[in-house]
Amino acid sequence: MKAVVLFSGGLDSTTCLALAIEKYGADNVTALSMYYGQKHEKEIECAKKIVKYYGVKHIQFDLSDIFETSDCTLLKKNETEIPEESYAEQLKKTNGAPVSTYVPFRNGLFLSVAASVAVAQGAEEILYGAHADDAAGNAYPDCSVEFNGYMAKAIYTGTGDAVNVVAPFVAKTKADVVAEGLRMNVPYELTWSCYEGGDKPCGKCGTCIDRKEAFEKNGVKDPLEYE
Amino acid sequence: MKAVVLFSGGLDSTTCLALAIEKYGADNVTALSMYYGQKHEKEIECAKKIVKYYGVKHIQFDLSDIFETSDCTLLKKNETEIPEESYAEQLKKTNGAPVSTYVPFRNGLFLSVAASVAVAQGAEEILYGAHADDAAGNAYPDCSVEFNGYMAKAIYTGTGDAVNVVAPFVAKTKADVVAEGLRMNVPYELTWSCYEGGDKPCGKCGTCIDRKEAFEKNGVKDPLEYE
Repeated sequence: MKAVVLFSGGLDSTTCLALAIEKYGADNVTALSMYYGQKHEKEIECAKKIVKYYGVKHIQFDLSDIFETSDCTLLKKNETEIPEESYAEQLKKTNGAPVSTYVPFRNGLFLSVAASVAVAQGAEEILYGAHADDAAGNAYPDCSVEFNGYMAKAIYTGTGDAVNVVAPFVAKTKADVVAEGLRMNVPYELTWSCYEGGDKPCGKCGTCIDRKEAFEKNGVKDPLEYE
Repeated sequence: MKAVVLFSGGLDSTTCLALAIEKYGADNVTALSMYYGQKHEKEIECAKKIVKYYGVKHIQFDLSDIFETSDCTLLKKNETEIPEESYAEQLKKTNGAPVSTYVPFRNGLFLSVAASVAVAQGAEEILYGAHADDAAGNAYPDCSVEFNGYMAKAIYTGTGDAVNVVAPFVAKTKADVVAEGLRMNVPYELTWSCYEGGDKPCGKCGTCIDRKEAFEKNGVKDPLEYE
């Protein structure tokens, strides 16, 4: 069995990569990373180190053109600031619409790219690290259980019943993801979650807040040092 | 209402573009074309002429990297020949698997790109020209009614209920599509369907055979001259 893993170099996708390697062996796993015009390339540098650590094949694409007209605050071309508050606080202001760091249909696009690559490589499975916390309150609608279900069916039928999408954490919290990763000795010191590209993670953006909490809930200190 | 139309410069997508313009007006329609490494760029030249004819906005992306490892016969990098026979004949040889001109999950990928662009542009609708003949016998599984339904739901939920996918021809035959186009005076002389990139369409590949038949069924001669 061959698998393609959507892999950003962040905590969730690195845990997902570890799970795929545990299941199918490093030789049968391809890590797939996408540059989409994000403000910093720190994640991509981390992705390269992790792929080297695990010895898996790495494919990278640049999709930044596609988001050229988006006003998402994660994108380099937009000078608007990334909010320094929790997702719950942000959602109060958006009235339930996606938060400003939502990259338009990014997960759908990335999964579709993975489907094309999977068919081309004869891989039967796509794994990705979406989890329940991401989709809470519609912050990221392309992370929800519902979206994942439809997308998985679209990919299965659209590839002629050849490729399955597996989101092993879709019903789990970020703390559960970290628990899985700790069990597998995932090198979390190599991962990057922060939306800013400083030397150390900022500790203030939505994803830093979530990450620190996820380690705390496991009674463990995040191996990364924060600003 | 703003709409994004997946637009290749072929017969189906040009008819779909005409329908979108009839519904929403040329100012509210964006035509979206993708280069994916196909053997010839004739379609893209045609797409440019048609967009100029209708006076709509045109966005183009190059996604050819994504199909780099695919063995699809439509791709320039593969020297294998495009079959010169009908889809029905090809499907007998593939035992029901997609035909050799199936570009891996191409429609899913293109629709996802369209979803990202639609959100970024504030468009509420994506139109595309998949029709029943394309999906017959699983020749192109990413054209089926079933696929289209799942993909539409994935895009609707994954964009936070913001974007609808409309495939106006999904239950129609290619002859029905031509009938619609003739009613709207679509400039079919500007369109290109042939998989080969000659001066004139070959008249022998699956898509040429289908196209000629679709005009014949409407009692009209295809305005293109064949080899």
